[in-house]
Amino acid sequence: MRPGMVVGVDLGGTKVLAAVVDDAGRVLAEAREATAADDGVAAVITRIANLVNLVIERAGGSREEISALTIGVPGSVSDAEGLVEMAPNLGWHNVALGRELERALGIKVFLDNDVRLAVLGEQAYGVGRGTHSMVGVYVGTGIGGGVVIGGELLRGGRGAAGEVGHMILKPNGPRCPCGQRGCAEALASRTAMERDVRKLIRKGKKSRVLKLISKQGRTRLTSSLIVRALKQKDPVMTKVMRRAQDYLGLLVANLVNALDPEVVVIGGGIAERMGEEFVAPIREAAGPLFFLQRHRENVRIVPTELKERAAPLGAALVARHRLAATSSGRSEISPLTLHPGGNG
Amino acid sequence: MRPGMVVGVDLGGTKVLAAVVDDAGRVLAEAREATAADDGVAAVITRIANLVNLVIERAGGSREEISALTIGVPGSVSDAEGLVEMAPNLGWHNVALGRELERALGIKVFLDNDVRLAVLGEQAYGVGRGTHSMVGVYVGTGIGGGVVIGGELLRGGRGAAGEVGHMILKPNGPRCPCGQRGCAEALASRTAMERDVRKLIRKGKKSRVLKLISKQGRTRLTSSLIVRALKQKDPVMTKVMRRAQDYLGLLVANLVNALDPEVVVIGGGIAERMGEEFVAPIREAAGPLFFLQRHRENVRIVPTELKERAAPLGAALVARHRLAATSSGRSEISPLTLHPGGNG
Repeated sequence: MRPGMVVGVDLGGTKVLAAVVDDAGRVLAEAREATAADDGVAAVITRIANLVNLVIERAGGSREEISALTIGVPGSVSDAEGLVEMAPNLGWHNVALGRELERALGIKVFLDNDVRLAVLGEQAYGVGRGTHSMVGVYVGTGIGGGVVIGGELLRGGRGAAGEVGHMILKPNGPRCPCGQRGCAEALASRTAMERDVRKLIRKGKKSRVLKLISKQGRTRLTSSLIVRALKQKDPVMTKVMRRAQDYLGLLVANLVNALDPEVVVIGGGIAERMGEEFVAPIREAAGPLFFLQRHRENVRIVPTELKERAAPLGAALVARHRLAATSSGRSEISPLTLHPGGNG
Repeated sequence: MRPGMVVGVDLGGTKVLAAVVDDAGRVLAEAREATAADDGVAAVITRIANLVNLVIERAGGSREEISALTIGVPGSVSDAEGLVEMAPNLGWHNVALGRELERALGIKVFLDNDVRLAVLGEQAYGVGRGTHSMVGVYVGTGIGGGVVIGGELLRGGRGAAGEVGHMILKPNGPRCPCGQRGCAEALASRTAMERDVRKLIRKGKKSRVLKLISKQGRTRLTSSLIVRALKQKDPVMTKVMRRAQDYLGLLVANLVNALDPEVVVIGGGIAERMGEEFVAPIREAAGPLFFLQRHRENVRIVPTELKERAAPLGAALVARHRLAATSSGRSEISPLTLHPGGNG
């Protein structure tokens, strides 16, 4: 390994992915580990640090050759303070992840939202290669997203740009975890689909979905169970999915009408598993809602190409951008401060 | 006048404004003229050229001291081709406005959408001074808008970014001139308000609005008539305005939730006349729909400060940006081509 490499980490609710990436976006080594958030904050941070050490070792290098690390978090962050403000899936609130990781590793650490990083990775190295503007819609437990303009992530005035899941598509619609009603997330996330499936079954509709869930020893509807139920042509799952896709089409159309991106990438667990089968009905639902004919002809609406690699790659890219911004003095980021006396 | 000045022009459905602007955004001279689009394309272009000559004269200069001119058009443009693709208010379709003006004036001409330019002007010199990200919502015959990120207008993959009026707020709602249903424009523009006022009156609601319109010798509901009816506490106008403001609040909330701008500026005829009285209920309607508490505390939602001067100032700024991009080779814009043998 030569000096100047960066590390991208994706901290998810169930697993952590880490990758050493060179300046062309090539992955030199990868590693993964269960998150096991139940073990507590300190245990998770130690686990991340160990994983980073492991992936650097796999790349045949040492920590001194790593210029910086960016970690994507499923929640809101304050990068300036190195703080995870709120990550509901981890049960984290105001966790000083940046400082702790810097202390443990002796590497400069940047924080960002995981989905935003995935959208950036997809723009730079996946379906968005060569485009100027792209929007991402990621469907999972919730709905996240991101906006990339001119190769740069839109972060917003309070770091909350790209939260397309909280655009309200149905005023007075179902309650969203955010407290509002009728957000895209409350209409078309996996959680919303599960709620709708259970409701239809309670109403007496025939479905094998609940059996599939318990047969797998699960309590919740996962992406893979959705795919299985659809393959078996379960009528309730089919109906609920169709409705979610219609709402996602409306969401995509609203984003396209307002922002006119070249590409809309659809990501998240269901999109990773189903690809075009998931996206085609979304595209069909969006098409008639574009206000310009040329949108219908020219906007590409496509499933993620990089899948779970998108976020670590985006994270690595942000590490590079931030370092460049720091060294050229263009940014608010404070100069590189290492903690070589750390215990990592 | 010293060399290096630029001219910003706002071509509206009823009037044309032109301003000579220096590099600090100071207006050295202004001039205005009726558009009178009924006279035909050639007459309007000659009128614009004469107005530009007049305003340069008023600034005490000559055409040779003008580096470039940008003209804002109420419609869609292809700047690369110097083409007004479609401007419904003018009845224009594929008009080579850029080439014709360059021929007439011997000045490099750039084209852009009028509302987008107004948002840029407002960001640079008005309510958005010093901000990184701003969104504009302009309520008039239709609803237009714009997004400014890092001091640059978002133009989009097909030059259609910022058309926030065609975000769909009510699926299967009233028909929009764009062909869709339930767009913000079909729910909250002046045209939509007039439709709703007439509908309520047909249903037997008491209102003086129609009398006000005919007393003024008008056939359509203008911004000034709306203001007058509201001052007289006309119950139908009050109710219709309140509903429009609720929809505008939903539109603003969706834009804020997705893009997290520092400022949302509300512009257009009604906002220019009513200011805070128009905006306060929009702000109130948006507040409970923000998914982040800090949006509620920190996003500024404010009426236009620059009013009709915003578009010429934004136009002048675009002229400077484009020239800079051309000279540094960063842009797709072809080198300066003048037509000094023109008849202007």
